[in-house]
Amino acid sequence: MSRDLTALFAPRSVAVVGASDDHSKYGNWISVRALRGSREVHLVNRTRPTVLGRPTVPSLRDVDGPVDLAVITVPAQGFAAAVDDALAIGVRAVVGITGGLGDQQDEIARKVREAGACLLGPNCLGVLDCSTNLELTSYDFPAGQVAMISQSGNIAIELAGPLADAGLGYSRFASLGNQADLDAADLVDACAEHDETRAIALYCEDFRDGRRFARAAARAHAAGKPVVLLAVGRGQASARGARSHTGSLVTDGVVVEAACDAAGIELVSTPTEMAHLLQALLRTRPPRGRRVAVFADGGGQAQVASDCLEAAGMDVPRFTPELAADVAADLPPAAATENPVDVAGGGEQDIGCFSRITATLTETGEVDAVLLTGFFGGYGEYGPSLAAGELAAAHDIAALKGNVVVHTMNWRSLAADVLREGGVAVYRSVEDAVWALDRLTRRGAHVPPGVPPIPPAEPPLRGNDYWTARRFLSSAGLPFPPGAEVRTLAELRAARLRYPVVLKALGDDHKSDRGGVVLGIDTPEALEDAWHDVATRLTPEACSVEEMADTSVELILGVRQDLRFGPVVLAGFGGVYAEVLRDNRCALGPVSKERARRLLLSLRGAPLLTGFRGRPAVDVDAAADVLVALSEVAAAHPELAEIECNPVAVTPHGALCLDARIVLVP
Amino acid sequence: MSRDLTALFAPRSVAVVGASDDHSKYGNWISVRALRGSREVHLVNRTRPTVLGRPTVPSLRDVDGPVDLAVITVPAQGFAAAVDDALAIGVRAVVGITGGLGDQQDEIARKVREAGACLLGPNCLGVLDCSTNLELTSYDFPAGQVAMISQSGNIAIELAGPLADAGLGYSRFASLGNQADLDAADLVDACAEHDETRAIALYCEDFRDGRRFARAAARAHAAGKPVVLLAVGRGQASARGARSHTGSLVTDGVVVEAACDAAGIELVSTPTEMAHLLQALLRTRPPRGRRVAVFADGGGQAQVASDCLEAAGMDVPRFTPELAADVAADLPPAAATENPVDVAGGGEQDIGCFSRITATLTETGEVDAVLLTGFFGGYGEYGPSLAAGELAAAHDIAALKGNVVVHTMNWRSLAADVLREGGVAVYRSVEDAVWALDRLTRRGAHVPPGVPPIPPAEPPLRGNDYWTARRFLSSAGLPFPPGAEVRTLAELRAARLRYPVVLKALGDDHKSDRGGVVLGIDTPEALEDAWHDVATRLTPEACSVEEMADTSVELILGVRQDLRFGPVVLAGFGGVYAEVLRDNRCALGPVSKERARRLLLSLRGAPLLTGFRGRPAVDVDAAADVLVALSEVAAAHPELAEIECNPVAVTPHGALCLDARIVLVP
Repeated sequence: MSRDLTALFAPRSVAVVGASDDHSKYGNWISVRALRGSREVHLVNRTRPTVLGRPTVPSLRDVDGPVDLAVITVPAQGFAAAVDDALAIGVRAVVGITGGLGDQQDEIARKVREAGACLLGPNCLGVLDCSTNLELTSYDFPAGQVAMISQSGNIAIELAGPLADAGLGYSRFASLGNQADLDAADLVDACAEHDETRAIALYCEDFRDGRRFARAAARAHAAGKPVVLLAVGRGQASARGARSHTGSLVTDGVVVEAACDAAGIELVSTPTEMAHLLQALLRTRPPRGRRVAVFADGGGQAQVASDCLEAAGMDVPRFTPELAADVAADLPPAAATENPVDVAGGGEQDIGCFSRITATLTETGEVDAVLLTGFFGGYGEYGPSLAAGELAAAHDIAALKGNVVVHTMNWRSLAADVLREGGVAVYRSVEDAVWALDRLTRRGAHVPPGVPPIPPAEPPLRGNDYWTARRFLSSAGLPFPPGAEVRTLAELRAARLRYPVVLKALGDDHKSDRGGVVLGIDTPEALEDAWHDVATRLTPEACSVEEMADTSVELILGVRQDLRFGPVVLAGFGGVYAEVLRDNRCALGPVSKERARRLLLSLRGAPLLTGFRGRPAVDVDAAADVLVALSEVAAAHPELAEIECNPVAVTPHGALCLDARIVLVP
Repeated sequence: MSRDLTALFAPRSVAVVGASDDHSKYGNWISVRALRGSREVHLVNRTRPTVLGRPTVPSLRDVDGPVDLAVITVPAQGFAAAVDDALAIGVRAVVGITGGLGDQQDEIARKVREAGACLLGPNCLGVLDCSTNLELTSYDFPAGQVAMISQSGNIAIELAGPLADAGLGYSRFASLGNQADLDAADLVDACAEHDETRAIALYCEDFRDGRRFARAAARAHAAGKPVVLLAVGRGQASARGARSHTGSLVTDGVVVEAACDAAGIELVSTPTEMAHLLQALLRTRPPRGRRVAVFADGGGQAQVASDCLEAAGMDVPRFTPELAADVAADLPPAAATENPVDVAGGGEQDIGCFSRITATLTETGEVDAVLLTGFFGGYGEYGPSLAAGELAAAHDIAALKGNVVVHTMNWRSLAADVLREGGVAVYRSVEDAVWALDRLTRRGAHVPPGVPPIPPAEPPLRGNDYWTARRFLSSAGLPFPPGAEVRTLAELRAARLRYPVVLKALGDDHKSDRGGVVLGIDTPEALEDAWHDVATRLTPEACSVEEMADTSVELILGVRQDLRFGPVVLAGFGGVYAEVLRDNRCALGPVSKERARRLLLSLRGAPLLTGFRGRPAVDVDAAADVLVALSEVAAAHPELAEIECNPVAVTPHGALCLDARIVLVP
């Protein structure tokens, strides 16, 4: 299924084309690092007989012996020829540092693929694999177990900082560049299969085939390798910036969220968040629930941590008297023991209490996780005996292998190192510890539904006027109130409908804001009056007359074809609530009924659907059916850029689409 | 207005009672630091003739010469006697380290006050004043311009970490302890008047007289010294913890928010947030608006920063073509120049571009602030010429004195130090820079209304049944629909009301959930039927019959007497929106009309009040009048624990209280 990238990550021999002694050039930076390993490295420079004190060859064709991987750093005008040379001598992987190739990059990528090789970049910053001692990058990265796949070199450098602080680093780094050949999906697949990689970090501006990417991420998830994605484009400015940066087509943030939800990808907003989450993912099992014990060695920290947890929607439950008594038996009399637990300055007197209490708390069934917060790690400063006791406590806490997360102001201490090396996540700020614990808990509760397959396309719909859309959607199973398209008074009179009815002038410009919709018409006479009024004022080509429907709640349900991720369903509240709640949810389509139900019930206004205080529940199943049908239609009809049913009237007894709009792909 | 705390912060001479050679005791830690200064220090120890190699006296009464300040660290049973000794020899400031004094602390505090002295603590961690070289603490803190007033020693230690990373530290540290005498308000006043203090940081679990505290903070604000408050008690667990920690009565989070809003206090949730905000407050003028230019040296960072800003509700506006052209003229061709600006790897080629472009962006009128984000600070690693250029650029950026905030992954670099020393806030994580910029901008836009005075108490209300409450509130100007209290059928028949009417069975148990409220009664006959039905089913002592009122929007308006902060008004939506929006706002009462209006319009559902898409605006003024009247009643009637009008029906033409409930202080 995935491409064989052995030549990229584990080449037997490497050539650097454009190797240089100039300290301001990639050809220098990469050559220096390439030579650190033990594999054979060929330096190619057209004019200089030596670089970095080693002999060069003027061209790849002059290299003596096989070359698996060629890094090409030459200026744009020489890039195509260098690739030709590489393919001619049997290179299997090309890393294109060179940027500014314009349209020729696609032709070059085609050639590389036809030769059975692969191309990373162009316009990329190189590749790194710590498990094979391959360093073909311009920067020194810390080694570790995270595969970093990035469309930005600086983001990879920035992430390395907080990762290193947490004792973590990269198993691999692959700079995506323009993804002319290898894309994020290929690299996710390759890293998911890489034994030395335990988690995959990704910065991506352009997902290319987004479904393919999401499926690769879902495979990594299934293989037990979490994928953490830093995506941009939630706002307008970043989309503008990305177009300028890598010419990327940036996907709308809600669509990326939908893809992440489907594939079990963890979405973050900054490199620091990424580092915090990776640490938790690599060190802490997702808790089974949201109940947390706070264990502090200062009252202030106990309170701050408790508030942060509750603000994040976690529970800090009061302990049962039995558990509180167990805790109290191990602590000085002034200690708080009901949750939060505070040793009340007892840390200096009895350093072993940290591991004993942590053990008690991880073993109880009353909480799902323990947050140790405060000064721990700093007692060692008070003397050798406390230092030894603190390290022993840290070892014991790590050995518990419980759901323990630590915040300590002494995060650079030996005890903190012991915790980290023993597999405990350690944070400098309590809000980061709480954020990571919350994310981890949500992950534990979320079973990703997977990336739904797209059915074969059906014969395309022609036309998108209101009644064409209505008939088409009706035949696909969407419920509309009885109605008729009418162009003449005779047709109006012939319509057999139950009153009251609504009369709508058709055509783009005749919507309710111009008085083109007349509601609550009670009699045939009133209907004719409305017809004459509308005809005179707006001269529409046609009208629609439809039975009025009851409504308890109005929803906006729709599907959009995203250029990267395909059909995406959208659900939100209509009417007044649309204005007040401003809350829409998305999912990759087509959706199952269960998925549709969960999407609807995840809306902030869900109480409007489920009922409360005497207000009855509405028929969520019927609304879910509408969403399922819409999503299936859109999946089979890629020519439909957008379908929107607004409003969908939902009552305790069903759902009806009161309007529908289709936009065709231009 | 404020107490003279010269003896506490600038004593001429100091005594440490309980001075010790034991490295695990406060009497040791404090003595070591006390001796660092140049002032006269007397060590008091009952039994040992020397401590720390210096002669001691057995009692304060044996000290030769005047003592301004005495730190008392002896066990609880000796504390009262030590204070007596101190007062006897003319000590003006007592610092009580000792804890566990129980009820006797109030008596001791009274004695101290009567002697014209002051007491910090007991159960506190000491006092520090860098401007007078006074160190009477157990920990070494970095010196700086922030006065830290804290009810938790560990929080003060934790805050010192990120402050020091930002090149900041403490001008003063005062540990509040149990606030038996000096409280947060006294210390805020003293620090507001302290020349070497530029900002005040406060961790407080118990505000004692909350109004007094808020007024002190408002004075500090007026004196140009921002107050940043870390408060706890938003959740249940932290309130539980605080009771255990300092016996504190923790104030509800929304009340603290209201006090902060009134006094211009900046409220934060964690020590790290506190450090981030203090840095911004000390280094950056609050921007005049929310338009930010993003200036990055990596496309990824440009996009991440833009998204963070837009997610925080800041604007990243596209530059005019003129400004974009000015920016482009100074950068390589591949640069992004429309906002975000990305030098596209040009940093190495032209390090001076950082200060030139920053100057262009701070001088344009198109944005209110500049966020420089990325790698800046790391170019120095590439060689001496780049290092010199980078430092020069940092100097030039600092010299601009513009609204510039910097995020750099190279936050520990020399260039970052130059920026900090030159008065530019520097953050390691872009989200922290964005958060601080957002807070700063909000501060710039917020003119604190001040802490409203409380009028003299009026004769107390007796009774709190529905009609007593209604008549009382009516006479205070609150609008109710016409109605009558009826106990007999004759009274019912005598009521002269316009139909339709509503009949309510009175008494706590007879609310709508038991069918005690009959709405929409159209005729006298239907009213009698309803009366008989209610009388038979519920046998209430009395009923209320009232004219039905129109309603467009239902509000819940009320006032609560907070034990610490006095009358607090509350506003929120009623009915369905209460369930869906879950959004209430508070303000310290009594409120002005303008304040009441602003409170209502700050609700998340404000579009329901102001109208949208054909939905008319309602009479916000009338709703504000209700809130003003409620707040004035409550301020003059401290016996009213709670008044709630729910619902208040608001239409385009007025507001009416449809129900009212009063709870008396027990």
